[in-house]
Amino acid sequence: EIVAAIETALGQGSLTGKRILVTSGPTHEPIDPVRYIANRSSGAQGTAIAHALAALGAHVIFVTGPADVPPPQGVQVVRIETAQQMLQAVEAALPADAAVFAAAVADWRVASSSGSKIKKDAGRLPVLEFAENPDILATVSQRKADRPGLVVGFAAETDDVIANATAKRARKGCDWIVANDVSPATGIMGGTENAVHLITAHGREDWPRMSKQDVAARLATRIAQALG
Amino acid sequence: EIVAAIETALGQGSLTGKRILVTSGPTHEPIDPVRYIANRSSGAQGTAIAHALAALGAHVIFVTGPADVPPPQGVQVVRIETAQQMLQAVEAALPADAAVFAAAVADWRVASSSGSKIKKDAGRLPVLEFAENPDILATVSQRKADRPGLVVGFAAETDDVIANATAKRARKGCDWIVANDVSPATGIMGGTENAVHLITAHGREDWPRMSKQDVAARLATRIAQALG
Repeated sequence: EIVAAIETALGQGSLTGKRILVTSGPTHEPIDPVRYIANRSSGAQGTAIAHALAALGAHVIFVTGPADVPPPQGVQVVRIETAQQMLQAVEAALPADAAVFAAAVADWRVASSSGSKIKKDAGRLPVLEFAENPDILATVSQRKADRPGLVVGFAAETDDVIANATAKRARKGCDWIVANDVSPATGIMGGTENAVHLITAHGREDWPRMSKQDVAARLATRIAQALG
Repeated sequence: EIVAAIETALGQGSLTGKRILVTSGPTHEPIDPVRYIANRSSGAQGTAIAHALAALGAHVIFVTGPADVPPPQGVQVVRIETAQQMLQAVEAALPADAAVFAAAVADWRVASSSGSKIKKDAGRLPVLEFAENPDILATVSQRKADRPGLVVGFAAETDDVIANATAKRARKGCDWIVANDVSPATGIMGGTENAVHLITAHGREDWPRMSKQDVAARLATRIAQALG
């Protein structure tokens, strides 16, 4: 909280006039009208980031899936459900000075999703065929036109956090990766704190374990410096 | 609201000394540590029923999955995530005078659920093998020992509502089915009202379309009459 307060005070207004896109929350991929596949994501970290960016004066477009926490005040909210809808909303929001992809987007959708409820027949199990969802981070990072000047991705990793996140940064073509260690030993998953490493072209920074609000404030300040 | 108020006033205390089990909300079936399959269910109808039963004086054991709405005051809350956990919690709560199964339990779980996050490999799609979940309504309805005197199931149907719900009552062995017409034309799904038919051994009652609170109040009154 103290870190957040100081950084907010130092950075007040430093993002005025900047247009920043933030994605947040899970996506829900329908199986049929009553069933869906989802990622576990409360939306708390993305919401805190959007709040911190808006507090520094940015115009924030907040593209959110069905999250547990409400969107922050003072941002432009776009609600979506699926990964395909999220990509559409993101592309519609460009151009932007920066984009932060904090959503936990489902990697796959059900290719054979049904318009009516799949009936439970004794002894018969459903067969779900999957299709790969669009990779929103890579798609935006690799755009020729209207690529935001700073593209920030997230990586929730359980093993080899730094190596996996560094490889992800190169593979996607984004500028920064916020790598979050969610291995069961950390007890991070579903909690209120994050243990973050910031991976940039210049290497890595290990941030101390801190609240999601402090991660958000620190990231917003770094974004303001990068765009400044 | 008026109906609810009158029925509550008439029925005040009529379930004193009765122990009633209510299930509510969706279940979440894990695919891996970050992904799951879920049913769409806000938990609003089950929560309203638990509230209405408690208002009539019942001791309510409220077994709930991860719902959007908070549990009502004045009930004993048991939180679960999966269908298997829900069955365990239900069986642990018996004996009971009545049981109302309002939860939207997933019919299937992922048999091959993974302890670590399934990686997205280019071009490779996951194969999910399913297993049938326990049928909580049928299991409790067909118990020899400790079967509640009144077992109430729910059916959300999109087609042939009455025929499907009547068949479900016979197949499960429960006493009543509250059949909810969720066909897209009704606009019920995800809304605040329900269009309900009560299927009993004596036939059916068609209730007018009303708020979930009024459905709950009317059902609680009928349960009080049946147990009285």
